[in-house]
Amino acid sequence: MRALLIVAHGSRRATSNDEVRALSDAVAARDDGLYDRVGCAFLELAEPTIPDGIRALMNEGVSDITVVPYFLSAGRHVVEDIPAEVAKAGPLPPEVNVRIAPYIGRSETMADLLLAQGRSTA
Amino acid sequence: MRALLIVAHGSRRATSNDEVRALSDAVAARDDGLYDRVGCAFLELAEPTIPDGIRALMNEGVSDITVVPYFLSAGRHVVEDIPAEVAKAGPLPPEVNVRIAPYIGRSETMADLLLAQGRSTA
Repeated sequence: MRALLIVAHGSRRATSNDEVRALSDAVAARDDGLYDRVGCAFLELAEPTIPDGIRALMNEGVSDITVVPYFLSAGRHVVEDIPAEVAKAGPLPPEVNVRIAPYIGRSETMADLLLAQGRSTA
Repeated sequence: MRALLIVAHGSRRATSNDEVRALSDAVAARDDGLYDRVGCAFLELAEPTIPDGIRALMNEGVSDITVVPYFLSAGRHVVEDIPAEVAKAGPLPPEVNVRIAPYIGRSETMADLLLAQGRSTA
């Protein structure tokens, strides 16, 4: 089983964390079958933590997890903290594979998203 | 003339600010003609400021500016600070129209972007 785990910073504002959870639900609804599970986790200030999020997916039988950092730039959180938190989920069984995708600010479709966002208010 | 102004937080890391500038260039390259200018500005820690970015566009003859907040959640920066900085560009001539689009975390295409980002490393 495959999973996508959206990792956000986490906020003291509960509504910001709920936005991420709603986004996770929206991703699950739009997935065309590549992922059996779509979830979210937080680097800090909200639950679940990244290790807890990974372990919860493993407990559901997921063996292939792609972590997508919901971050706009390659700061310390993306470069150091997220890999360190992912590592804390281990040691993993050999059949479990966790990879970290590029952060979303690197997405080639971000330019299109910005244009669409402008157009939505034009 | 119309412009899209991407507004990011700004960072002490010059490379993060340069990422935003490169994204602005990518948006300009992908625009199909809706905008005569695409630029970026920063809420803090980098140049140009939001009022300076708006004034620079006006000086180039732009009279219709859509500000897109390059932010993932509706924190204080989006709700209060960006509108306040946009207001500082004024008073504007009556023929100049500045509107603020929803922040990118609200984009309906964010879910697709996340799926594509996961797929890029699958």
